[in-house]
Amino acid sequence: MTVSVYGETFARWRAGCGDPWQDYTHHAFVEGLRDGSLPRAAFLHYLVQDYVFLVHFARAWSLGVVKADTLDEMKVCAATVDALVSHEMALHIQTCAVAGIDEAKLFAATEEFENLAYTRYVMDAGLQGDFLDLMAALAPCCFGYGEIGTRLAATAAPDMPYRDWINTYADDGYQGAMDAVGHMIDAAVTRRMGSDPTATARWPHLQARFNTATRLEVAFWDMGLRGA
Amino acid sequence: MTVSVYGETFARWRAGCGDPWQDYTHHAFVEGLRDGSLPRAAFLHYLVQDYVFLVHFARAWSLGVVKADTLDEMKVCAATVDALVSHEMALHIQTCAVAGIDEAKLFAATEEFENLAYTRYVMDAGLQGDFLDLMAALAPCCFGYGEIGTRLAATAAPDMPYRDWINTYADDGYQGAMDAVGHMIDAAVTRRMGSDPTATARWPHLQARFNTATRLEVAFWDMGLRGA
Amino acid sequence: MTVSVYGETFARWRAGCGDPWQDYTHHAFVEGLRDGSLPRAAFLHYLVQDYVFLVHFARAWSLGVVKADTLDEMKVCAATVDALVSHEMALHIQTCAVAGIDEAKLFAATEEFENLAYTRYVMDAGLQGDFLDLMAALAPCCFGYGEIGTRLAATAAPDMPYRDWINTYADDGYQGAMDAVGHMIDAAVTRRMGSDPTATARWPHLQARFNTATRLEVAFWDMGLRGA
Amino acid sequence: MTVSVYGETFARWRAGCGDPWQDYTHHAFVEGLRDGSLPRAAFLHYLVQDYVFLVHFARAWSLGVVKADTLDEMKVCAATVDALVSHEMALHIQTCAVAGIDEAKLFAATEEFENLAYTRYVMDAGLQGDFLDLMAALAPCCFGYGEIGTRLAATAAPDMPYRDWINTYADDGYQGAMDAVGHMIDAAVTRRMGSDPTATARWPHLQARFNTATRLEVAFWDMGLRGA
Repeated sequence: MTVSVYGETFARWRAGCGDPWQDYTHHAFVEGLRDGSLPRAAFLHYLVQDYVFLVHFARAWSLGVVKADTLDEMKVCAATVDALVSHEMALHIQTCAVAGIDEAKLFAATEEFENLAYTRYVMDAGLQGDFLDLMAALAPCCFGYGEIGTRLAATAAPDMPYRDWINTYADDGYQGAMDAVGHMIDAAVTRRMGSDPTATARWPHLQARFNTATRLEVAFWDMGLRGA
Repeated sequence: MTVSVYGETFARWRAGCGDPWQDYTHHAFVEGLRDGSLPRAAFLHYLVQDYVFLVHFARAWSLGVVKADTLDEMKVCAATVDALVSHEMALHIQTCAVAGIDEAKLFAATEEFENLAYTRYVMDAGLQGDFLDLMAALAPCCFGYGEIGTRLAATAAPDMPYRDWINTYADDGYQGAMDAVGHMIDAAVTRRMGSDPTATARWPHLQARFNTATRLEVAFWDMGLRGA
Repeated sequence: MTVSVYGETFARWRAGCGDPWQDYTHHAFVEGLRDGSLPRAAFLHYLVQDYVFLVHFARAWSLGVVKADTLDEMKVCAATVDALVSHEMALHIQTCAVAGIDEAKLFAATEEFENLAYTRYVMDAGLQGDFLDLMAALAPCCFGYGEIGTRLAATAAPDMPYRDWINTYADDGYQGAMDAVGHMIDAAVTRRMGSDPTATARWPHLQARFNTATRLEVAFWDMGLRGA
Repeated sequence: MTVSVYGETFARWRAGCGDPWQDYTHHAFVEGLRDGSLPRAAFLHYLVQDYVFLVHFARAWSLGVVKADTLDEMKVCAATVDALVSHEMALHIQTCAVAGIDEAKLFAATEEFENLAYTRYVMDAGLQGDFLDLMAALAPCCFGYGEIGTRLAATAAPDMPYRDWINTYADDGYQGAMDAVGHMIDAAVTRRMGSDPTATARWPHLQARFNTATRLEVAFWDMGLRGA
């Protein structure tokens, strides 16, 4: 896997982020998903929180449509909302149903602080800034899960308990959607920042957005482990 | 056709609006679409403006996802964004392409003031108020075009030049989508205003939103006729 | 008067705007204010609409606080809200009171389409874009009225009926506030776009915001004359 | 002190909140401020975070101006922004300056998750809902600090180290501002929900906003103690 599969901008943000990117994508929670050692209680605790996370993540991608400047930006954002609601959340609903947690309970779950902090930070990045501020805050979740899915699909044992979770992010549907997002972001950056974006006054502000969201991903996994 | 096809809330807003609703749905522009007498230049002028209108209308429905409180509200709003982008706008693109106006030109068309006023009023209704303020401002376009489509499909000559436009709004896809919107709005009203919403302190504010948007629909048709 | 009194950014936007800036700042309505020939009915029609305009303009400057990145940006935006509510609107309230129109009537006045279009376009520039998009849409009113006030104060007869209006925009309070706004915008541009902002990919988008708002100023004066 | 000093709505929200209100207003951090036993390191850690909190709280009150429906709502929200920036934040700047932390460092401080969660939750309450959703999320901080200030001023020893902090919230300026906020909220509730708001379908949603913000206040004090 090369990271540039999701476009040039993500490759730059990822390189600019440094250690926290590794802390996020190789977190103990992730390694527990890979080797199957993650306690089921921690996984379910995470999954319930992640369902509510996705509700607000879908709101944030819809805010992307509100803030878009081109028809292509609008279409990719709208397609991502659809992918979240129809595809990713289905995993949560099915897995939690088996554990006796129905969708109404998922939707009404009390959010942990790490969850609140993350989703509302992303929403406010969109309210305070422009389309790129929002994209920089959305990127770590989108592409980080893509990276994790690809890596775990290649290295996890076939018969371990978290195979469905891994497949959700490793499969062609998710990977293709994230590829489209990455290239849309590249075009959005060129449109607003020209052909040498890292040389602009604005770049460090976008990098800071990406870094904060990555830090919040680490905290989200920490929160998951607390459920064990 | 009974107006309650789109739900109870719309039936109340429509009744509370009075004459302007008739001015909008039976405007000279509409009658020109029905009997085929509308000058082609006026139709094309309208269609170009309406394309840009739909871009911002899709942004406003996406703001609906941002402001929704329930998963059903989110899903109906997201489906409406998709219907606008994939279905309604296709008519504009095809019709304008025949007239030598490509989609890039449509997207970049200078907005007339009536167009700016309408779409930005709807956006700001969402920013200033809550989900219902936004729905009240979105409703006249959605349901009014539904009414017009149904009426014109039943009364227009089969071989007149605006048949494609009429079919776009008379067909089952559009009608079904608006039926879903109407019932979602009914549930949204009950959730926030109880079972007797017209008796609440808030009702006149929502009616005023609906009336302003209806007034802006009349102005939009007036603007269309100026293109003749 | 040199235009750079309100900063470098405004000087560039003004130069980039071309004829519409002249159409706005030397409109027949303005010349009627200068020589006193403007019909009183047109002035009052304008003043009632402008009161409602200022309500939404104060909302837009408050959105500036929401979107600010630095404490100085926050402070200048908050001070402008205060100047609008405490200073500019006082003129409208007093003048309209003499004509028998009280403040409750002003606040509840039905907005003309040109008024709706202008204020809601500015609000949406803030929702869709970032702080600079909002500033580019706010600038023509702020600095254009400053230019008009300065020019009319120097050339109008001392005993003509619109002296109070002219003084509101010519006086040191308004001029000083706009000077502070202009320099805050310069710093905001440097922070986000570097030291050569007109060379960036983004500049034409900001210029387009400024031009649209200038076009809406012309329409606002046209609307005023309709009241005669 | 009776709680109704800040109006009827707050009295209802406070009563409806239950134990968490006590957990917040009588937190160990607060008791440490009262008897002077709070470690200085914890106080400074809190104060730096609270400065950044107030920056975003000022943004949220400015969003209140954006969402207001009446001139009085606009004025009270704008006055609160001014009180936060000119009054409350001065305490933080002076106290931190003595400890060698200048304002630029305060503004750039990395936000703890509890801080991010709280301020961005409030911002999003405003983006998702209407004016009352925003007020319900802003209320616990405003009125809780008022209650704490009044109680601690009456019971703390005169020569203890946190007297300046206590006076900031006990003094007539803060108390008068919060009294104005409380009565503005009462009028805003009546305008939108009628004379019996607790009987409406919407009340539980507003109470839930108030409860979440109160829960976040408790977490904020917990975060402060971690700095010891």
